[in-house]
Amino acid sequence: MKRKVYYYDTDCGGVVYYGNYLKFFEEGRTDFMEKTGCAIPDLEKANCFIMVHHQEVWYKHPAKYGQELDIETYAVEITPFRIVFEAFVKYQDTLLVQGITDVVCVNKEGKLSSWPQDVIKAIPISERKIKIRRF
Amino acid sequence: MKRKVYYYDTDCGGVVYYGNYLKFFEEGRTDFMEKTGCAIPDLEKANCFIMVHHQEVWYKHPAKYGQELDIETYAVEITPFRIVFEAFVKYQDTLLVQGITDVVCVNKEGKLSSWPQDVIKAIPISERKIKIRRF
Amino acid sequence: MKRKVYYYDTDCGGVVYYGNYLKFFEEGRTDFMEKTGCAIPDLEKANCFIMVHHQEVWYKHPAKYGQELDIETYAVEITPFRIVFEAFVKYQDTLLVQGITDVVCVNKEGKLSSWPQDVIKAIPISERKIKIRRF
Amino acid sequence: MKRKVYYYDTDCGGVVYYGNYLKFFEEGRTDFMEKTGCAIPDLEKANCFIMVHHQEVWYKHPAKYGQELDIETYAVEITPFRIVFEAFVKYQDTLLVQGITDVVCVNKEGKLSSWPQDVIKAIPISERKIKIRRF
Repeated sequence: MKRKVYYYDTDCGGVVYYGNYLKFFEEGRTDFMEKTGCAIPDLEKANCFIMVHHQEVWYKHPAKYGQELDIETYAVEITPFRIVFEAFVKYQDTLLVQGITDVVCVNKEGKLSSWPQDVIKAIPISERKIKIRRF
Repeated sequence: MKRKVYYYDTDCGGVVYYGNYLKFFEEGRTDFMEKTGCAIPDLEKANCFIMVHHQEVWYKHPAKYGQELDIETYAVEITPFRIVFEAFVKYQDTLLVQGITDVVCVNKEGKLSSWPQDVIKAIPISERKIKIRRF
Repeated sequence: MKRKVYYYDTDCGGVVYYGNYLKFFEEGRTDFMEKTGCAIPDLEKANCFIMVHHQEVWYKHPAKYGQELDIETYAVEITPFRIVFEAFVKYQDTLLVQGITDVVCVNKEGKLSSWPQDVIKAIPISERKIKIRRF
Repeated sequence: MKRKVYYYDTDCGGVVYYGNYLKFFEEGRTDFMEKTGCAIPDLEKANCFIMVHHQEVWYKHPAKYGQELDIETYAVEITPFRIVFEAFVKYQDTLLVQGITDVVCVNKEGKLSSWPQDVIKAIPISERKIKIRRF
């Protein structure tokens, strides 16, 4: 999906604030889920709320005000309790930032529950692209 | 109250983002209400939620990264349904931004209700300082 | 323009945070200026930076997660030093929030300057719709 | 350092938005650096700007509106080009969220440079506490 960078995304370093890429990742996931036919607002009506469990982000180049970014989102792993997304923020084919987001499903009371079977079936799984640097 | 300016408050114009002063106003109100003995989390337990109805902001000078600001908050009017706050954001005695926030009380279902009598009694009313420029 | 509401726009009151409508107003202005042929990034190259001088907001109904909002933006007044925008945030034809934003032009050093003549000429002026309640 | 949770930190899930913990980490780092005698605004005057290169976050329990959190920040590794911080967000001794932030030093033009010797000398190094789960 396309996402323009606004003033409110940036900081006085002249680039997008490092914490705001997690908002871009949310936008990408929301769009991805909608396209699979599992729109998040519908999941919530079925008492299934997405909660992020783990997040990793690599910052390669900063995004800047006025740029129109591409946010690419892929599901790379799905188990009864976990979906792992990879996201890539690009500007004109240059990779700026990438992230791995590990999400679980909780009910209205915040209790962990398994992903509904139809969600598991609907989500296409892509090959993992991010090679994790262990330090 | 004192409030330091962080990177996340600023934008690529090099100053605090214009929308973020409303967060500073929230912090000021929260502090003000706590000091009157009507802490907002306690009001919520009594099914009384603050909702902003109207907001006006005058930007005189921009706040910058690293500054320690003073946020001054006063209640200048209270009626059964409405509290009007004035807020002043200052840096070293220079007024940077001022705002008027008009809040109402809603219950859990979002329905308008009157402010509890003990809240009305507890809140000290100050003289209105902001002379509203009508244009 | 259309704008979907994300989790990051909302707060624990279950609705969009009152300060975040100013981000929606920024998006609306950005889109409006681009359509007039005066895209903000281009203005900045010509040493003309938009700075908000005054903001007023009326909150009528809250926007909620997952809604696709309409943000309508109009310029209602323009003078050598000032442009006044009106913005309307709607959901399915219901007006939720409206605002008036008064912006000036500053140069890189933050000094007030007049709007370039071609900007003044390019911007279409609409009739003022918001009747200002004076209290 | 202490940090109260405001409405603007939370989302309609009723808890702090997952991206906002990165703001808490920034606050913690800012406080940490100031206490070592290397306040970030001073570093910037010496043409040394902190840029986050890598971030990892583990979400264990959500923080909620009105809570007063503890943000603990430690430097656990320092090399000529890199400082690694660990941060722990706690509420009443319960660990809610932890993160590892890997920062580098860039100059005004955004070019990577080495950390000033006096910064390297001033920063106390703590033992690494977070055991990284590799998945």
